[in-house]
Amino acid sequence: MAASEPQRIALIGVGTIGMSMAALHLARENTIVSVFDTRPDLEQYLLKTLPNYLSEELPSASSVTSLISSGRLHIHTSLESACASATIIQEQGPENLSFKKSLWAQVESMAPPSAHLWTSTSGIAASAQQSEMRDKTRLLVVHPFNPPHIMPLLEIVPSPDTAPERVEFARQYFSRPGSRHRPVIIKKEIPGFVGNRLAFALLREACYLVQEDVVTAKDLDTILMASLGPRWAGNGVFESYQQGGGEGGISAFLDKLGGTMQEVWDGLGKVDVLGGTETGWKEKVISQTDGAYGTFTAEMIKEKEKRLEDLVRVQEKKYDIPELE
Amino acid sequence: MAASEPQRIALIGVGTIGMSMAALHLARENTIVSVFDTRPDLEQYLLKTLPNYLSEELPSASSVTSLISSGRLHIHTSLESACASATIIQEQGPENLSFKKSLWAQVESMAPPSAHLWTSTSGIAASAQQSEMRDKTRLLVVHPFNPPHIMPLLEIVPSPDTAPERVEFARQYFSRPGSRHRPVIIKKEIPGFVGNRLAFALLREACYLVQEDVVTAKDLDTILMASLGPRWAGNGVFESYQQGGGEGGISAFLDKLGGTMQEVWDGLGKVDVLGGTETGWKEKVISQTDGAYGTFTAEMIKEKEKRLEDLVRVQEKKYDIPELE
Repeated sequence: MAASEPQRIALIGVGTIGMSMAALHLARENTIVSVFDTRPDLEQYLLKTLPNYLSEELPSASSVTSLISSGRLHIHTSLESACASATIIQEQGPENLSFKKSLWAQVESMAPPSAHLWTSTSGIAASAQQSEMRDKTRLLVVHPFNPPHIMPLLEIVPSPDTAPERVEFARQYFSRPGSRHRPVIIKKEIPGFVGNRLAFALLREACYLVQEDVVTAKDLDTILMASLGPRWAGNGVFESYQQGGGEGGISAFLDKLGGTMQEVWDGLGKVDVLGGTETGWKEKVISQTDGAYGTFTAEMIKEKEKRLEDLVRVQEKKYDIPELE
Repeated sequence: MAASEPQRIALIGVGTIGMSMAALHLARENTIVSVFDTRPDLEQYLLKTLPNYLSEELPSASSVTSLISSGRLHIHTSLESACASATIIQEQGPENLSFKKSLWAQVESMAPPSAHLWTSTSGIAASAQQSEMRDKTRLLVVHPFNPPHIMPLLEIVPSPDTAPERVEFARQYFSRPGSRHRPVIIKKEIPGFVGNRLAFALLREACYLVQEDVVTAKDLDTILMASLGPRWAGNGVFESYQQGGGEGGISAFLDKLGGTMQEVWDGLGKVDVLGGTETGWKEKVISQTDGAYGTFTAEMIKEKEKRLEDLVRVQEKKYDIPELE
């Protein structure tokens, strides 16, 4: 079955990510979404929470009740019934290896053999999750960035056993015409995949600079938002330095800035987050961050989401640039 | 003299950054900009190039000729005349320590003793540049991000000798009401200051991931633009994790993700840009980046600038969020 055909998606676990994933799938035509979660108040919870995630552009689907009555959204109280006729099964359960191993072994016995199996994990590779499965060719990681109904990226990370056509199906599903989503295939399983590795590399240095009193946590955030954030929203990092190097491209840039770059690389902070040593930064970072931002209210989160949507829209905007001399 | 009063800014060196800086200063009211550069065709060069940088919103100043005839822009063929009556002297010359040391010693003998002395260097600390000056309290780094007429950040980096009122003057000048600029004071001199340290920390890991064939340079750029770019355009890094931790804030986030984070930190790539070892990534990164982007045309750069302006405007946008349950 091609990814462009109608799909029946079973979502296992609807916390924050699962709810946003439900909205992502419901925003597409030709999808039927089945939801399973062990919480006893699942229906009440969906009725109350899902509307916050549904796009205002979604035609005649602003109410969860109408999605249910029209058959686009199903609520299941058993894993078996959720999986029974699904073409895609996607889990957003606890980040716990034994939970996931056991889940996939169960799902395998309940779902059609053709169904695609996706895990939204941010940290547990498909090759570790599949160890109790008979057929290891079906499972892959589809790692979203929060919140997935707005954020374009999906990291698709197969295990060495995942069948190439399973990878291609996931890529095509998220690349449907009109979708704002941008799936990328990660060629090797690696802790943190790519997006979080890049984020954590930057975060480590950020924690070090706060620890060393070079800058406060709030000022560091201002620096990021006033420079690298908008730059990388408009340009990739390699693309930026290709442009920065002028006619010589990134090669010229590395020649010109290589000295400063190596000096910075040699001096990057080596703080740790676990263990007894080099964790002295945590208290300072936590207290400065708490002091700067406090607790996020529902209104603050909504405002952040609206701004994120606007930023993503700017990425999609076309510009009509007249020919220059 | 307060930073809000009329200023006469002498710009020493008008390459790409200097030209953009000229546009930044000219976009403000009550500024007179004097330009000095050793290139023999300075006036022709300004007439041809500066219009690309001037804001379309700039009232009646779309032509460089009118800026000159109205006395807002002066072209100087000697350093002495450019500095003679300046209140701010800002250099964007070559990134070369002996050039800068010699320049400031000359400027000190030519400029009014009250004039503020700013260097746009990205890599040479004020404390190194000032060694041949009699009065070491006047010089500080004002490090812009390219292009400064659009990019909001200015990193203000004093030397240990810089007078606090000089630092405060620079901060106030760039924080004028109505300005899109966001100056941040860096409390200690450190290679790469803060913005480039954060960028280079991320770049190092990016180069490693390309070297290891986890992802291509183009796909890595897509990942950054589809996730961290827009996230950090809307939210700082500490702010993001404060929000990500829910009610427990960044402390809860570090508890929850600490295991993956430490695993990533322990495995971060240790590639080098100089020296014989660990530089094997360069050929792959350069060829993939060249292949993906080629050479940037004037039209491509203009489009990138327009998108960057739109992204920065979204940051300034106010949202009216109704009260949520």
